[in-house]
Amino acid sequence: MHAKTVSGLTTQRKKSMFQAAQTAEKCTSPTECVPSVATTEDARSSQKSKNSRLGFPKRSPHPLTDLSDALCSQRTSPCLMDNVIDSQRTKSTENPGAIGVANPKESPLAHIGIDLLGGDLASLAHLLATLHALYSEISTPFCLTVFAHPDMTSSIEAFKVANEIKRLEVVETREVIDMDEDPLHAIRKKRGASMCLGMELLKNKQLDALISTGNTGALIASAKLHLPMLKGISRAALITLLPTRKEPVAVIDVGANIQCTPEHLVHFAQMGLAYQKSRGIAEPKIGLLNIGTEEKKGRLELRETYKLLQSFSGFAGNVEGKEVFSGKIHVLVTDGFTGNVFLKTAEGISAFILETLHNNKKLLPFSGPLLRRLEQELYSAEYPGAILCGVDGIILKCHGDAEPEALKCSVEGALKLIEENFLNKIKTELISD
Amino acid sequence: MHAKTVSGLTTQRKKSMFQAAQTAEKCTSPTECVPSVATTEDARSSQKSKNSRLGFPKRSPHPLTDLSDALCSQRTSPCLMDNVIDSQRTKSTENPGAIGVANPKESPLAHIGIDLLGGDLASLAHLLATLHALYSEISTPFCLTVFAHPDMTSSIEAFKVANEIKRLEVVETREVIDMDEDPLHAIRKKRGASMCLGMELLKNKQLDALISTGNTGALIASAKLHLPMLKGISRAALITLLPTRKEPVAVIDVGANIQCTPEHLVHFAQMGLAYQKSRGIAEPKIGLLNIGTEEKKGRLELRETYKLLQSFSGFAGNVEGKEVFSGKIHVLVTDGFTGNVFLKTAEGISAFILETLHNNKKLLPFSGPLLRRLEQELYSAEYPGAILCGVDGIILKCHGDAEPEALKCSVEGALKLIEENFLNKIKTELISD
Repeated sequence: MHAKTVSGLTTQRKKSMFQAAQTAEKCTSPTECVPSVATTEDARSSQKSKNSRLGFPKRSPHPLTDLSDALCSQRTSPCLMDNVIDSQRTKSTENPGAIGVANPKESPLAHIGIDLLGGDLASLAHLLATLHALYSEISTPFCLTVFAHPDMTSSIEAFKVANEIKRLEVVETREVIDMDEDPLHAIRKKRGASMCLGMELLKNKQLDALISTGNTGALIASAKLHLPMLKGISRAALITLLPTRKEPVAVIDVGANIQCTPEHLVHFAQMGLAYQKSRGIAEPKIGLLNIGTEEKKGRLELRETYKLLQSFSGFAGNVEGKEVFSGKIHVLVTDGFTGNVFLKTAEGISAFILETLHNNKKLLPFSGPLLRRLEQELYSAEYPGAILCGVDGIILKCHGDAEPEALKCSVEGALKLIEENFLNKIKTELISD
Repeated sequence: MHAKTVSGLTTQRKKSMFQAAQTAEKCTSPTECVPSVATTEDARSSQKSKNSRLGFPKRSPHPLTDLSDALCSQRTSPCLMDNVIDSQRTKSTENPGAIGVANPKESPLAHIGIDLLGGDLASLAHLLATLHALYSEISTPFCLTVFAHPDMTSSIEAFKVANEIKRLEVVETREVIDMDEDPLHAIRKKRGASMCLGMELLKNKQLDALISTGNTGALIASAKLHLPMLKGISRAALITLLPTRKEPVAVIDVGANIQCTPEHLVHFAQMGLAYQKSRGIAEPKIGLLNIGTEEKKGRLELRETYKLLQSFSGFAGNVEGKEVFSGKIHVLVTDGFTGNVFLKTAEGISAFILETLHNNKKLLPFSGPLLRRLEQELYSAEYPGAILCGVDGIILKCHGDAEPEALKCSVEGALKLIEENFLNKIKTELISD
């Protein structure tokens, strides 16, 4: 095993273990890289160039990104990542420092990054249990990068050997952004944190999707720092699917923006529409989450949003929490505070009901199939996590306490988004909107 | 039947039908009354006096009651109610115009008013179905006043005769406050509306509790206009019980105030504590509904409220929607917008799960007992409706689309609050807090 630590980051290299698989699936062996500083423009061109270098980027300007604006002073800072994992998609090269980023067309396998270090359950046991769930339950082949404390590496290595796992790489880091850290402060000070490293890999197309259980605010701030916004969108928002009596409803925002203007909410509606259209729903209906169906209900920003949304052909008016599950709307628009309460309440009462049912199983000893069907219906759409919509990259945010089973669903969800070309579809929908 | 219409209000009188029952239970026959104007002070003294007159009251000053302040111009307006139903608690008298308001000690039966006219389901069929549920399922004797359009009276009368119902009176009115009406405008212009008439009866102690399915904003505005606030409370708030894995949690506010200051939220915490103590919980735990448990989470007003609540011995910090149902807290403090979304989401997903279970019953044909147990656990605490806490009267707000079964539970809930002397207990707790 070859490990090298610079500025809190150690790159894990496992040439011998990966070469066979990488050759077979065009995920070639990792190569050496040297410290470098790259601009955003460099990063953008990396998809075409096989010789671009990894580094902390300059940020591209985004309209209304107050969060990103606060980070502007960091845009020309030198990169602290002087050694990072080489993508399994990169071409093998004998030239240290040159990282060849493969053209996606040459890389048939999707490459997922999963960062559990900042989550509530972060531990070696949790990481290993997650890996076990991923490799035992997902049949589709994929490349995986996990982020781990150096102390965890030998155990992960042992897991790989014991289970004959291929296409799994580890990015070591001692830096983690905690749940209660101020997002802006954290991403400024902890550039070697797992979340930031993952975003860097995503930006440079060395990952196709990044999954995180960490600090939501830091994830969003980091995404806005690294990735351009989608055209016409001023705020990134978290979107998630929830089951209803008919089609799953896409709820946006479920936690990215605790306060929103009517314009933000309209952008959320546009993204929600684009997302549902990309899922094959021809004419999605939009509802505005409120405390009554009447136009005058709710806070001022909701009343103004109502007026703005009336120009949308799919606008079905205000919707109350109890009506969402009827399936009459496909997109539920709300600010991130209310949406988060909505989502977590739905989860909380679902878990409570399932527990009540389990506790009363003595009333019906053979109720297992009924409960399993219920759990399946409740959780199939929800578990993949929330998609951070509005930035040019696939980022999935899972709960801080996501269990291995939920994370397995999240990886499956990410693979599906990649396979179905989600990002291009949503860009097309937003342009044609 | 004697009916008289003045200013949109008809008082329904049924001397012959009521006399036997009223005599037996000290609910004596109704008497004539004349138009009058009374001040709030008059109204307050009416409990002691047997000769006070009904009328539209002056309002007592309440700190921070912006809603009430907007109504100040109405405080000396003459009463439009020139004929109202006589309470079954009143003493019989031959002197028209003099209404004897009985001392509560002389009235062993609780007197409930129920106003369904402003609800989403308002119809004769709904009213009759509700009466059927009340009289067939509640064994405790009580006096009831319902509000009805004159067209409904003959059918209600027929129902009474057919079912040998006693102690049921009808207040006729053609005025109703609709769901989408501006609350302040409505209670100014529609003083003969069912809701306002009910509040008048409550103020004059002719009702012990009022139940309404109507416009929430108008109900609150009307309550604040007619009734004094409880000591130390600046805003009335809706409180409701929801089931958890342990004791039911009291959620406050679930819809009265869509925007709140930290001071309002602290008052809600005080009322929630008092309510749970009045229910027998010695040391209730308080949680602040937020999108994370960390102190810095959420909007500014929540972060400030967190600091203020730290001086409360029972403060358990921020609580997420999914944690509420664990039962670790007894009082959940939130603004009325978020609380309403929380409540309706919990109801919506519960109904969805129950429907999913019913739809999958073929998996387990004899799952009826399990489902019934679940429904019982889910709805037993929830159905009585929300209590409007903070004003000096017992007012229960049910959903606009409350079904007869829910309304039956609400009447049972009101009877329990009266029997257990809820209002005095909460006053005592607030004073000793």
